[in-house]
Amino acid sequence: MKQDKNIPYKVYLTEEELPKAWYNVRADMKNKPAPLLNPGTGKPLKAEELSPIFCDELIKQELDDDTAYIEIPQEIRDCYKMFRPSPLVRAYFLEEALGTPAKIYYKFEGNNTSGSHKLNSAMAQAYYAKKQGLKGVTTETGAGQWGTALSMACSFFGLDCKVYMVKVSYEQKPFRREVMRTYGASVTPSPSTETEIGKKILAEFPGTTGSLGCAISEAVEAATKQEGYRYVLGSVLNQVLLHQSIIGLEAKAAFDKLGVKPDIIIGCAGGGSNLGGLISPFMGEKLRGEADYRIIAVEPASCPSLTRGKFAYDFCDTGKVCPLAKMYTLGSGFIPAPNHAGGLRYHGMSSILSQLYHDGYMEATSVCQTDVFKAAEQFARVEGILPAPESSHAIKAAIDEALKCKETGEEKTILFGLTGTGYFDMVAYEKFHNGEMTDYIPTDEELAASLAGLPAVAE
Amino acid sequence: MKQDKNIPYKVYLTEEELPKAWYNVRADMKNKPAPLLNPGTGKPLKAEELSPIFCDELIKQELDDDTAYIEIPQEIRDCYKMFRPSPLVRAYFLEEALGTPAKIYYKFEGNNTSGSHKLNSAMAQAYYAKKQGLKGVTTETGAGQWGTALSMACSFFGLDCKVYMVKVSYEQKPFRREVMRTYGASVTPSPSTETEIGKKILAEFPGTTGSLGCAISEAVEAATKQEGYRYVLGSVLNQVLLHQSIIGLEAKAAFDKLGVKPDIIIGCAGGGSNLGGLISPFMGEKLRGEADYRIIAVEPASCPSLTRGKFAYDFCDTGKVCPLAKMYTLGSGFIPAPNHAGGLRYHGMSSILSQLYHDGYMEATSVCQTDVFKAAEQFARVEGILPAPESSHAIKAAIDEALKCKETGEEKTILFGLTGTGYFDMVAYEKFHNGEMTDYIPTDEELAASLAGLPAVAE
Repeated sequence: MKQDKNIPYKVYLTEEELPKAWYNVRADMKNKPAPLLNPGTGKPLKAEELSPIFCDELIKQELDDDTAYIEIPQEIRDCYKMFRPSPLVRAYFLEEALGTPAKIYYKFEGNNTSGSHKLNSAMAQAYYAKKQGLKGVTTETGAGQWGTALSMACSFFGLDCKVYMVKVSYEQKPFRREVMRTYGASVTPSPSTETEIGKKILAEFPGTTGSLGCAISEAVEAATKQEGYRYVLGSVLNQVLLHQSIIGLEAKAAFDKLGVKPDIIIGCAGGGSNLGGLISPFMGEKLRGEADYRIIAVEPASCPSLTRGKFAYDFCDTGKVCPLAKMYTLGSGFIPAPNHAGGLRYHGMSSILSQLYHDGYMEATSVCQTDVFKAAEQFARVEGILPAPESSHAIKAAIDEALKCKETGEEKTILFGLTGTGYFDMVAYEKFHNGEMTDYIPTDEELAASLAGLPAVAE
Repeated sequence: MKQDKNIPYKVYLTEEELPKAWYNVRADMKNKPAPLLNPGTGKPLKAEELSPIFCDELIKQELDDDTAYIEIPQEIRDCYKMFRPSPLVRAYFLEEALGTPAKIYYKFEGNNTSGSHKLNSAMAQAYYAKKQGLKGVTTETGAGQWGTALSMACSFFGLDCKVYMVKVSYEQKPFRREVMRTYGASVTPSPSTETEIGKKILAEFPGTTGSLGCAISEAVEAATKQEGYRYVLGSVLNQVLLHQSIIGLEAKAAFDKLGVKPDIIIGCAGGGSNLGGLISPFMGEKLRGEADYRIIAVEPASCPSLTRGKFAYDFCDTGKVCPLAKMYTLGSGFIPAPNHAGGLRYHGMSSILSQLYHDGYMEATSVCQTDVFKAAEQFARVEGILPAPESSHAIKAAIDEALKCKETGEEKTILFGLTGTGYFDMVAYEKFHNGEMTDYIPTDEELAASLAGLPAVAE
């Protein structure tokens, strides 16, 4: 292995170097993300309107567009030590395999039982729920990473945990359920007959494989109907991006130690939790004019909210019980084709990232899943880690950028987010190995149809 | 979390601090482990007799009882960086949950896609096979960790890899196969009809769920019948314990940094690879009279080679094609009851560990699997990591020792090996959650019957 002087394969921060505050990128945005609207009145939601759904402290964080640094409570910093710091890895073996002059780094968030970065926000949200004296929380999960993360966090803080899991994932990932049960959670495939909205969706679309938007509706209904319960969400929301800023803060601290500055930062984008967290401090520098970075969001061609969606107010859920958010959306009724593997299946995108994209601070690209799995296998064989399909979207884009450098001879420094591992995604890998994996790109007509249902909002 | 001053939750060595040589505990043993015997002649095997089966450099390591430190080639040290150093973790949360004054540490080897410590030896063995110019290697795998590790190593070094997987594990862990395929390996459930010995065993025991001993026979046959192939083994052998000494060396280096000395060292024991590796440098000090440690091997009550086996020469495999090793054995025909979950199902035990145990340098205990899974779940809920059933044997014993400290008030320092994660063991966890897991302890008569077949060897 040809190793750069002074650049180890992996950098771990020490316990003392771990961030003590999250970074709130909204504080540095000139154009703030648009506020959540009450779907009934069309007016910006106030804290008191959100309090039947969310924990009080999390509402505060959700609505705070001004405080740049928010202290991480000691209890959360303590449990972060269970799985943080995560390593910043120099992909020497991948560089060698590609024959590229580019220097590739990845921030690996998969070294924990949830298998992803989701635990960063789960621990925070469970802590605040417990601190408020709640009995439990409800949530939805797509690929299962968020549900697992929340189960772990609830077990750690002693909260009841009820998870609605998108049916196609529930069926493709039977062992995810057992992991969640190990941590004491209950798991229901969505849509279910446990909720009114689930029954309604099942009646309207019999045989549906489910969607995140639909599972959200069920989880919200379940939370608001039970005393002492609140709903928590693993992506999209401002609070989640705040918690996930720990990824970028650690990455930046590690880069600073090495005296390295990335040129390109790449993350996969579903609801935006990983990408938003990874880029936060770098984006902050860019917004303040202190540095420039190329920032690239990578989404599945089968669920292309940034690249083919509309920047508009939309419901956050299929059942239309949640607030309206201004975001790049494919329409709240959009459900990715059943051949779509893994996560990144949300119809919308974080309002923060949507605004930043709209304002030209980042790029977006979409990739087909067979190409994604090719990149995943190539990566696994040289770097050892078997990546999650979600993360592999970022791998694919990073490889493409590194190959461009090979053509031009440029020695660019690329950072990508390796959000997690694919150990519970082996059904999808099996399809890929057997040549049974297909791609699906929605037609313009399909997207137009699903966008036709956008709510009318006077802005 | 109550944290000791100067003792972080996790210690990672830096790249410069990583061991540059393996430690060969045999060099410090007064009574060397007995040599492997040729099953035909009953005489100690010479290097040339082993060379149709094993790689040349590995034979050298296998037979070397004298060299205390053997340099780790740079290429292996490079690929170790992919998944090493592994963290030494202070189990603060477990201590708190138990209310024990004991200080519990674990060395966690599961942060890699093979999910265990097995990759330490796989990388070494694949490297030496490649260096010898071989085309490929064959092996057996029980729980699947070794097979996965070897697949990863072979993919890394560009070798063909053929894995015979104990049938019960093959069926309980379908996704393991896909992981191995991701790395380009082929996987066959054992016993199979691909080999003569497999056919023979199937004829004799139709419907058998397989055993490690039987899969070894098949893998050896497959290697010796193909030009350019050799057989590699993930446990039991001296060379494997040598490679695994990296675990103990890193643990000891981390302890030295902290200024801490463990009182009790605990490891699970199947063939002995993890236990032997973990304890090596500590055992060295003990053998040289420089320090004293209580060292405890923990084995399943359903496969109790140390606690209920006989110290004698026996075949290493069910098919009786392999050399004879002197070890604690249950008889090469012993197959654990089908309700036995996970690995630790080998009928024998590393000759090194057998000799050390025989000479009184370590203790052994056995535990029932329902208790093991209880300990696993307890551990997962407070420390976050969902452990492998194998590793959970050590967790169970560590918890028991910590609870003894609670009774006596002693502040003992306990180190245990957390060899891996249980992400591919969810069928077993599901049984446990559903209350369907049972225990099985072989009767004295059963063990006597299986020991009756020991080969007659004039020592």
